Amino acid sequence: MNLRELEALFNPSSVAIIGATPIEGKIGRVLVENFTRRYRGKTYLVNPKYSEILGLKCYRSVKELPEPPQLAVIAIPAPSVPQVLMECSEIGVKAAIIISGGFSETGTDEGIRLEREVREVVERYGIRVIGPNCLGIFDNYSGVDTFFLPEERMKRPPKGGISFISQSGAFASALLDYMAYNNLGIARAISYGNKVDIDDVDLIKFLKDDPVTKVIVLYIEGFKESRGRAFIEVAREVIKKKPIIVYKAGKTPRGGRAVISHTAALAGDYNIYSAAFRQVGIIEAETFDEITDFAKILLTQPLMKGNRVFIVTDAGGIGVMLTDALVKEGFEVPLTPEDLKGELRKVLPRHCIPDNPIDLTGDADDERYREVLEIIAFKPYVDALVIGALPHIPGMTMKLADYISSVMERAQKPVAIINIGSEVALKFKAEFERKGMPVYESPERAARALRALYVYSMYLKKYEVV
Amino acid sequence: MNLRELEALFNPSSVAIIGATPIEGKIGRVLVENFTRRYRGKTYLVNPKYSEILGLKCYRSVKELPEPPQLAVIAIPAPSVPQVLMECSEIGVKAAIIISGGFSETGTDEGIRLEREVREVVERYGIRVIGPNCLGIFDNYSGVDTFFLPEERMKRPPKGGISFISQSGAFASALLDYMAYNNLGIARAISYGNKVDIDDVDLIKFLKDDPVTKVIVLYIEGFKESRGRAFIEVAREVIKKKPIIVYKAGKTPRGGRAVISHTAALAGDYNIYSAAFRQVGIIEAETFDEITDFAKILLTQPLMKGNRVFIVTDAGGIGVMLTDALVKEGFEVPLTPEDLKGELRKVLPRHCIPDNPIDLTGDADDERYREVLEIIAFKPYVDALVIGALPHIPGMTMKLADYISSVMERAQKPVAIINIGSEVALKFKAEFERKGMPVYESPERAARALRALYVYSMYLKKYEVV
Repeated sequence: MNLRELEALFNPSSVAIIGATPIEGKIGRVLVENFTRRYRGKTYLVNPKYSEILGLKCYRSVKELPEPPQLAVIAIPAPSVPQVLMECSEIGVKAAIIISGGFSETGTDEGIRLEREVREVVERYGIRVIGPNCLGIFDNYSGVDTFFLPEERMKRPPKGGISFISQSGAFASALLDYMAYNNLGIARAISYGNKVDIDDVDLIKFLKDDPVTKVIVLYIEGFKESRGRAFIEVAREVIKKKPIIVYKAGKTPRGGRAVISHTAALAGDYNIYSAAFRQVGIIEAETFDEITDFAKILLTQPLMKGNRVFIVTDAGGIGVMLTDALVKEGFEVPLTPEDLKGELRKVLPRHCIPDNPIDLTGDADDERYREVLEIIAFKPYVDALVIGALPHIPGMTMKLADYISSVMERAQKPVAIINIGSEVALKFKAEFERKGMPVYESPERAARALRALYVYSMYLKKYEVV
Repeated sequence: MNLRELEALFNPSSVAIIGATPIEGKIGRVLVENFTRRYRGKTYLVNPKYSEILGLKCYRSVKELPEPPQLAVIAIPAPSVPQVLMECSEIGVKAAIIISGGFSETGTDEGIRLEREVREVVERYGIRVIGPNCLGIFDNYSGVDTFFLPEERMKRPPKGGISFISQSGAFASALLDYMAYNNLGIARAISYGNKVDIDDVDLIKFLKDDPVTKVIVLYIEGFKESRGRAFIEVAREVIKKKPIIVYKAGKTPRGGRAVISHTAALAGDYNIYSAAFRQVGIIEAETFDEITDFAKILLTQPLMKGNRVFIVTDAGGIGVMLTDALVKEGFEVPLTPEDLKGELRKVLPRHCIPDNPIDLTGDADDERYREVLEIIAFKPYVDALVIGALPHIPGMTMKLADYISSVMERAQKPVAIINIGSEVALKFKAEFERKGMPVYESPERAARALRALYVYSMYLKKYEVV
């Protein structure tokens, strides 16, 4: 496969929207709005019914276009799709995203026949296709956006390093909207639908060398034929450059049956998948929360060199919860060595607790955090820090984010922050995350996320990638 | 124990704030502000240094008060506390909340001696005491609020049916703030600190007969001496009237050591606690998230009669995730019986999937939901519904909340809603929750919460409480 062909999908210099329409509420209308909003390349509209849409010229067919566009976005009734895709191929279009449904997912003879015809065009002409029956691509850098839900229904996340591939369109749109709300940055998101051509395997191969993608996330229900094995083999190489997080749906036999109803995929034996994922260093998110919990720590934090974690907190209870959670995830929470205790006692008031968890107590201020962090972050027996900084204490200000990020950057060790609450907490969260530190509301979720980072770190170390 | 004594703590007709001060940033100032804001009873301020604070008369000592207040809130340096508590007892004060720290938690001889002196006053005079070294009580109905964090730092939640008891003050304040942000209603919250007198056992006994408390939540690190056994025995009775959710901190030996540093409590053998909790029907929250996830379903939903769950969704992927999650939690997700399939096919377009999970697909609207729910909710083989209503589809409006709550109320069966995303999702969430239905962002968390409801339902059934 020529990966540069896939460039035409994500970063085309020109796009034709086939099935463009001025009618409100129609997919073809949302597509026109999406492309006129952010896409910087040339946009051509195609629909024989119109000569103009929203002030833009509209062409009767692709054959009338002044140049062959690099990408065709096809949103027309299924029966016309094979013919139009062939016309696109003939004029030299490199890639197409077929949004239209009405193919094999219907289970009807006609749908299956139409999908076979699409595949025949792909095979004959070599045009690269995403879909049919999909949301397509949201590319935050080029502005390609075929997710046909309007902004009022689905917010677009900020630019960032996470790329996301989903076998479920609805799940993809929900996750994008969720990430927008949580200010998590996206590079590219792909919903591939019936994957008549391009599938997960092609996509992770492409994202491996994509400079803006730092972490790859996948929602997978099942693979076609031998593509499961191919996925594992390709993933093995991708992992060496960037982490892959997989949420596998259809884990139970009953869930597998639901997969058949949903995407007609075979969910396969989950235990075999899970073992294969683990073997090649793919990180499995076992819950919805873990998808973004894991992504944000893998995106921002340096690798771990060992499993010894120190806790610094202003809330004793959070310290206890964190200790349990970290131990449960297999971390060592070492007792503070005597000489370190001595150092800490020099800077801490008598009522503070130098044991790990180090409890700065409710009268802590930024300065007390700073002094303690400057001492412990550089100790060779500290592999990571978790900071339980509840923002309800009067002494905590936004400076704390600076202090923590400064010391952790110099120490080159990972950190995770626990922060629980309402408006004040959200302001602190935003500031911590702006400074590149992952924030969690739950001690257990922070511990799980740190474990994902640890597992990835140890995998790379084992295979001497780092 | 006379439980009516505890009324004086939660709903006193008059309060004295001993240690009141006009100095900004001091605890005594926040307490004055708290009580002048919402408390309706008579508030007396006591501090020999002032004759007036924020426009209110201030008394030199409790002996000069025109009447004995029912409740004394004490926020003065530890060495003066035993004497002042004795004076309170002598004039007939029924109960006191001792906010001041500087007692046994310091581990010093003086602190231990002062705490013993406080205990001696309690034993001699029978005054009931919360504390010392605590945040005290937040009572959302009477307006008693000794949580000395100002509103800017810690929001107060709306009135509601959850009461919360915490061995960690910081955790209590974080949870209140978190609940305020998530619009979860609180009845009473108690941080009891060193529990020289009143402890968890007394408090759950009191809350058992408290008409505004519907669900009791506890954060527990450890019990004193024989109080663990007493707690279990009392809980056994409470459970018959209302559910108890416990988050036990200090689950691991390493966490237990952190507990000793934090509250000097003995965490005890977690497995023994956990088994005892299970035996008497206490629901254990294993993570921070589960505390409120469980509370809101137990608060709002009727009991389950069996373990068969049907899923209705507009997003196939969410349906698959939910199926896995429910099966993992031990639920049965039955296949849709043939006759029900027939009924559903009559109201559903051909591309919808009548199998369980019932997939209404992305072109669903409120009406399609309503028609399906009216059919399935009343089937005898449906024990609960989980509805994966992703709000990104154009056909979904706020009417959906009405439709669902109307049918579920008539069917008298529990429901949980999955809803993921940003502003649109939050608007739907608010509307669903206003109508008394619990909303979750994660399929796995919804399944865990439903399981908590199921376990509680089955416990009551087994002991023929219902």
